[in-house]
Parts: sequence; C-alpha cells; structure tokens
Amino acid sequence: MDYNAESIKRHREMHGKVAIVSKFPLENIDDLSIAYTPGVAAVCHAIHADLRESFELTARANMIAVVSDGSAVLGIGNQGPEAAMPVMEGKAILFKVLGGVDCVPICLATQDAQEIIKTVKYLAPSFGGINLEDIAAPRCFEVEDGLQDIGIPVFHDDQHGTAVVAVAALVNALKVVNKKLSEARIVISGAGASAIATCKLLHAFGARRIVLIDSKGIVQKDRTDLNPYKIEMLEVTNLENIKGGLADAMKGADVFIGLSMAGIVSEAMVRSMAKDAICFPMANPIPEIMPDLARKGGAVIIGTGRSDFPNQINNCLGFPGIFRGALDVRAPRITMSMKVAASKALADLVGKPTPEKVIPWSLDRAVVPAVAKAVSDAWKKELAGTGAKR
Amino acid sequence: MDYNAESIKRHREMHGKVAIVSKFPLENIDDLSIAYTPGVAAVCHAIHADLRESFELTARANMIAVVSDGSAVLGIGNQGPEAAMPVMEGKAILFKVLGGVDCVPICLATQDAQEIIKTVKYLAPSFGGINLEDIAAPRCFEVEDGLQDIGIPVFHDDQHGTAVVAVAALVNALKVVNKKLSEARIVISGAGASAIATCKLLHAFGARRIVLIDSKGIVQKDRTDLNPYKIEMLEVTNLENIKGGLADAMKGADVFIGLSMAGIVSEAMVRSMAKDAICFPMANPIPEIMPDLARKGGAVIIGTGRSDFPNQINNCLGFPGIFRGALDVRAPRITMSMKVAASKALADLVGKPTPEKVIPWSLDRAVVPAVAKAVSDAWKKELAGTGAKR
Repeated sequence: MDYNAESIKRHREMHGKVAIVSKFPLENIDDLSIAYTPGVAAVCHAIHADLRESFELTARANMIAVVSDGSAVLGIGNQGPEAAMPVMEGKAILFKVLGGVDCVPICLATQDAQEIIKTVKYLAPSFGGINLEDIAAPRCFEVEDGLQDIGIPVFHDDQHGTAVVAVAALVNALKVVNKKLSEARIVISGAGASAIATCKLLHAFGARRIVLIDSKGIVQKDRTDLNPYKIEMLEVTNLENIKGGLADAMKGADVFIGLSMAGIVSEAMVRSMAKDAICFPMANPIPEIMPDLARKGGAVIIGTGRSDFPNQINNCLGFPGIFRGALDVRAPRITMSMKVAASKALADLVGKPTPEKVIPWSLDRAVVPAVAKAVSDAWKKELAGTGAKR
Repeated sequence: MDYNAESIKRHREMHGKVAIVSKFPLENIDDLSIAYTPGVAAVCHAIHADLRESFELTARANMIAVVSDGSAVLGIGNQGPEAAMPVMEGKAILFKVLGGVDCVPICLATQDAQEIIKTVKYLAPSFGGINLEDIAAPRCFEVEDGLQDIGIPVFHDDQHGTAVVAVAALVNALKVVNKKLSEARIVISGAGASAIATCKLLHAFGARRIVLIDSKGIVQKDRTDLNPYKIEMLEVTNLENIKGGLADAMKGADVFIGLSMAGIVSEAMVRSMAKDAICFPMANPIPEIMPDLARKGGAVIIGTGRSDFPNQINNCLGFPGIFRGALDVRAPRITMSMKVAASKALADLVGKPTPEKVIPWSLDRAVVPAVAKAVSDAWKKELAGTGAKR
C-alpha cells in the first residue's frame, strides 16, 4: 500500500482525525437545563468552592492536551504549527483508542520556550495532563522543567516515552543474552532529548557503563563544546573517560542504542562489539544501520522504530498507559519511579523474551492496563512515602 | 426536577460533558501507518507547502475552541477558569449537537486582555474558529478587536449571538404590532457587551430611535462618566438627547430590551410605554420584570431568556448556525453582513409571527441549516465584492 497517498486521501476525506462528542443527551428542555443553564451553575459553584472538584465534575478528569510547537516533527524537522497538526492528531487518537484518554491536539504558533511555558500554564485548568511533543532540544528540556509544578502531569513523550520503551526492550534483550545491565557497556548515539532521557532512565535501572555520543564524538569531560544538558550527563555516563568517535565507542560494547540519524553505523562497527551484541538502531524511518546488516555484523538481538521488522520499539507502548495510570490516580506529575514502573511492567509483559520478541507488539491491548496499573501503583507508593521521591 | 442536584450528579458520573473520538480506524499496522507514521509525514509536507491545506487535511476544518477567562460566567460572575469549565463544556456540546461543529472548551488562567489575545493567537493554527465566551466587559471588546485579523473567525457570543437572536425576535414582534423598526422608540437597559452589540446590530437593521441606559441612567452626551465604548454608541443612539433615568426613557417607548439585572422594571414603567408595547426583559435567570407583571402593565409581546415562558430569546438559536456557516465557506471572520443575514434568517423561520411566537424554539433542528446557509451566502456575497464591507 502507498501509505503516503492513502494517508493524504483519507485525511482529505475525513478532514483530519479527531472529533468531539457529547457525553450528555441534548434533546429536550430538561436535557438543556441539566447540561447547561440553569443546572450547570450549581456545578460551577461546587468547583468554585473546591477547585479539586474540577477533576471530578469536568472533562479534565480524562482529558489531556498534546502540545507541540512543531519544531521537531518526526524525522522531518521544523514544520511549524499547521503542518505539525496531523502528527498531533495521530497521537491524540492513539491516546484515545489505546488508552481511553481524551486528548486534544494543540500546535502553538510560538517556538519561544518561555512563551510555550506561559501558554501551557494558561491552558492547564482545562486539562488533566499535558503531553509535550516534537519540541526541539534543548528547548524541550526548558519547557518541561518549567512545567513540573503546575498541578497536572506534564510529560515530554519524545524524551521519556522513548526511554521507557527502549529500556524495557533492553531489559528483556539482556535476559536473552544473559548479561547484567549494571555491567553491560551501552553506547547511546545521539545526545538529544530522547538519548538524554534514556540515559537517565538506564541509570535509574542500574546501568553504570553508558557512553553518550553526539555528532562531534564521545561526550567526555575534556570537551569544551557541550551544552549544560550534556555536561550534566557526565555525572552518569563515561565514567571511564573514553575519548574518540562512534567507532571507538562501539569497540567491545554490549549494547548500541541509536537515537540519532540514518546509516551512521557500519557492519564493521557492529562486528567490533562484544559477543551477543544487542543493536537498537531507532532512527526513523531509516535506522542507523539496517537490521540485515547489523545481523551480518554479528548482532543477535535487533530492534528498530519500524513496524516492518521484529522488535518495534514504539512510543505507543508507553504514553497511553502512562497517562492512563497518572489520570486514574490524579497524579500531579510523572515521576522517575512511575517511569521505572512503566518500563518494568512493559518488559514483564513479554513472558519469555526471545531474540525476535523483546517487547510487546505496538497495538497489543494488554499493554495499557498493565502499564497503567504499574504507574498508578508507583504513584500511590510515592504518596504513601515509601517509594522513591522525584 | 431539581436541575441543580441532577446536574451535579450527572457531571460527577460522566466526568464532564465532552469527549474525543477518532475519525480513523486504528486496528492494525496499515491503519497505524496511514493515521500515523510513516504516512502522516506526507500530510505534514502537503500542509507545509500550502498552509491553506490545513483547513482541509486537519480537524480544524470543523473544529473551533470556546475560549473564556471565566470572568463573567452566566449571571454568576467571576468564577475563574476551573469553575467556568462546565459552562464552556455546555457550549461545546451545543455546538456539536445543534451545529455539527466540533468544539474544544478552553478556560484560560489569565484575565489580562493582552495575554488572552496572545494566547488565542498561539492557539489559532489548531482551530478553524474561536468563540469567545463569558469574558467581562469592557475587556471583551479589547480581546475581540485584537483578534479580528488572525485568519479565522473570532466571535464573542455574549455580544453578537445575543444581538442576532434579540434582533430577530424584535423584527417579528414589530410585524405582529405593525410598527416600523426605523420609527420605533427602543430602550435598551444595560450598556455592557450584549447591549452594545445589540445596539449596533439594530442600527444596521435601520433602527434610528434607540436609547441606551446604564446603571447611572440614560447614556447621553453631557455625561462625563462614560467609557469609550459607550461614547461611541452616542453616534447611533439617543439622537434626540433625552436625559434622565430608566423611568424617563420608558415613557412612550415602543420596545424595551433588558440586558441588565433582575427586577429593575416596574409595572408602572411598562404602563407608561406606547400602545402595543414589546418587552424583552432578558436578564437571566430573573428578568428585569416578570412576564405576568409586564402583561399586567400592558405589554402585548413578551420575550425572556428563560425556557419556562414563551419566546425564549436564547443564544443557542444563533451561534451553532453562525459558526456552521462560517466554517462551511472558510470565512476568515464574521462580518456585520453575516450577522444581519443570520438574524434575518432566524426571523424568517417563523412563518407567521404571533405574540406567543416571535422566535423559533431553542432546540428546533430547522434553525441551524437556515442560519448557516444565510451566513455562508452573506460571506460569498462579500467575497464577490457585492455585499456590505465590514
């Protein structure tokens, strides 16, 4: 099927992908008097008296917004708000169909971090959560950091969604090859939003031998061109202070995680890795190395972002269940312990991992309930003061 | 029925009134590849190449936002964003059920006019229109004025929706008593958002003997306490320069339109009006004078905002059809000629007006198609250069 042509055709026929429906009947005067005036005034008064009631009496109980500035859309770059909208609508329907989460797609006509922060704060009373999406790094870090205390979960999926799913896949892959995460040498190519989040989550899982690589080479302490986010990563990566480029980092590595760009990994680089190498070249749509080439180089477990190869490491295994779980318990933020729980639950869904299956299928309907429960439980545990604090 | 109790009960059970649905199936890899990656990228590119395509290929084709700052909610005042939400959700479902217009309710956590303007501009790429709602005067004028050139219709319903419906009712009422609009003496009590818009629309319809009254008395040129919006109204009202209070204005008047507050009109005031007086005391929920008292005072046609009396002058006769019509022709704003057309179409729907029926029933499903067509046609005429310019 020509997905491009079919996609344009269907978007034009349907005028996009999301619609609004009423949960109340509206047929007669009684209906009108209950849904609208005069009855609705009592609902307003109840919320005015106790703002927490807005999470029970309005749609924000189950309604989030996907918010983007259109600056880093998929792999196609800075598209601006109008052209980014089809992706946000796609995300919105995935939220609904997979997670039962009502989601309004919003693309903003500003790419200024502080303006985005202010706008989301203004929008917050209307929603139960905010999924930030396709905002370029390093702006995305500033935006997310600026919105952690607004009383509802604000989660940048390109960072944490990717991290949750990639780490789950890696946990299972390491089981297959019988290696320990704490001892595995892990190379992460890319030092953008998703790579840094994956680094942090891997560290929370116990990984201690991570090396991060950007377009200039290995991130190490003698470099003078690192932004503050990369400098921060030196606390948890490259503790052995390795220097050089991608080829140097790959030598002897147990794991390669690609969150960078098409084709930068060669067969020879994979061959230089340790025995039973795990390769997750996740650049989309064209991975850092194609699966067949990685296999020729000796990789035994391969995962990509694509649906046409085994082990699709797809964000939609993460975000619907994560927000479902957060909304279910009215969590005001999504903490590290909730992300760890989501990743573990996702890994556990694969009863007996094999090289061809280290992660559930993207549209597997068992995923959301399991991830949601893990996330809800993790928050309840934090609230009870027994879990890890953010 | 106890509407208050029932309204709270149902809002709690359903968690508010609006939900999102997917217009695309999402069951298998093909579905995912069409709705989301990789197919969706082609849709993004098509919009990026021609931004007008966003009105065809995304949900904004049929999606508007109701935006409020929660500062003037119904008759219950400044509720703030969370507590205003139930009203905006009510509006949203009326848009959908009556007009087939998808509508996202948004309440902003700011009551600063310039911040509201900026936020709506940021939101604009995601929507095909903006219905401003329950924003206090005079801020609402500044907000609406600041948003007339953003490429999509921005319409403050409390002003223009009320005006469109009230004028339609008056046009029919004058037919019943066989008086001419151009000669009728019309008293409008209230000089807020809806009163000023009604004044302007009446003037566009040919009314020339309007007197506006605020809490300090008749709006006239010797007063020194008028805001700029009221001063502007002196160009089209009170050309005879009448002075005094409400009782003075009412003497000999043919029409009373109340957009002010409960109980301020007495039976004696109505008795002082001209023969065959028309009374539209529209304050909600308690009108300026109760219908039975107005009738005792000699009024022959009475309309209120309430559903429990004849002639309910209800905004939901206006906004769904107005936006339906504007969206159908991708009008970038809602002009005076479109409002005039809406009002005329609404009046025409009542084949033979009687004292008990000068306006259609609020949920009459014939209203939206007629109003929408009139609005669409008016815009097409303007576009062709033959209609009145805004």
